[in-house]
Amino acid sequence: MAKYPGVSMMVTRRLPRYYRCLEDLIQKGVERISSREFAQIIGFTASQIRQDLNCFGGFGQQGYGYNVSVLYQEIGRILSVDREYPAILVGAGNLGLALVNHMGFQQKGFKLTGIFDKNPSIIGKIVGGWPVCDVEEMGAFCKAHKPVAAALCVPDSAALEVAERLVRNGVRGFWNFTHHDLSLLYKQEDVAVENVYLGDSLMTLTFLVTELIEE
Amino acid sequence: MAKYPGVSMMVTRRLPRYYRCLEDLIQKGVERISSREFAQIIGFTASQIRQDLNCFGGFGQQGYGYNVSVLYQEIGRILSVDREYPAILVGAGNLGLALVNHMGFQQKGFKLTGIFDKNPSIIGKIVGGWPVCDVEEMGAFCKAHKPVAAALCVPDSAALEVAERLVRNGVRGFWNFTHHDLSLLYKQEDVAVENVYLGDSLMTLTFLVTELIEE
Repeated sequence: MAKYPGVSMMVTRRLPRYYRCLEDLIQKGVERISSREFAQIIGFTASQIRQDLNCFGGFGQQGYGYNVSVLYQEIGRILSVDREYPAILVGAGNLGLALVNHMGFQQKGFKLTGIFDKNPSIIGKIVGGWPVCDVEEMGAFCKAHKPVAAALCVPDSAALEVAERLVRNGVRGFWNFTHHDLSLLYKQEDVAVENVYLGDSLMTLTFLVTELIEE
Repeated sequence: MAKYPGVSMMVTRRLPRYYRCLEDLIQKGVERISSREFAQIIGFTASQIRQDLNCFGGFGQQGYGYNVSVLYQEIGRILSVDREYPAILVGAGNLGLALVNHMGFQQKGFKLTGIFDKNPSIIGKIVGGWPVCDVEEMGAFCKAHKPVAAALCVPDSAALEVAERLVRNGVRGFWNFTHHDLSLLYKQEDVAVENVYLGDSLMTLTFLVTELIEE
């Protein structure tokens, strides 16, 4: 049973932003903040913030506001970034390497346990402390190490086959950088999918830039 | 003056998804589609689709639905992906390289005209057909080639300084992969910012996976 069954994807997507913003406040030495001040920094309204946080129990105190480090810990706990879900990365091209080297999986609830690729010139290289393994060994690896999630940085043409193979081997979540909307393939209660469409983001910028510069 | 002043960011962000989905339909040979069928494929409701597209003039015909290739062209035109805005990339690490090699800037309204980095071991390398230039040459380059937008793949610590320098040199849009919310620094009518927080996306997956697997 889901722990927060009533929480919408809109609220879910705002949680990491709260978390990131609170981390910045801690680094700046801010100990407490009103929802009005928090709103100005984060760019939501104060009422939005109160409403979002009320989905999980509130955490604010009338006349005091929020204790920054307590709220940070609470949201981290809700997001489950304190976990160490075993995860793998499939596709060790430039994007995969960027994720392994800079994403900080461990601060976000995952522990990278394996990296896979099918390119013989990449297999065997050490990336982020891990040797890149042949994607053909992935099934056996999954049986032995039971990764819960996978970051998919494979070419679009390989996405569906790799995803299917991983689901058959027990993977329950995808961080999907391919073109294919994997969420259409699985029931929400079976597999969690976070699609990252970088191309959509770039086209959004195209629209916004045009709105700015065109008369 | 903006061409579509009343259009919300929510609608704007759905446009690339329509565009991508229509491209898939064209490749599958689909010539026409009802808003009900379109809704099933894209995962929005039919009324949402009609409402979104009505912001730009509709394009559907009662009893016929949508002509797939006409709608594809219209949305491409609204997004302005047919433009060739000169753009640069700053930061040619793994993430930068992944964007240059796989993002297809040209199909999304931008023409990459320069790549910059400060790392001497990268400067001079050829990436996607372009030599990586010293970031110190960026100002002179901007004066000569007037890039409209920049993809920022620099370390967080360099983000603000690089962004400021680019804005002083006429850049009006950022595709921002750093930790800093650049949209807080500039007025919306001066600089368009598309922040990509990959870490937020990963934490969203953490939450969703936990909701799936925890009792």
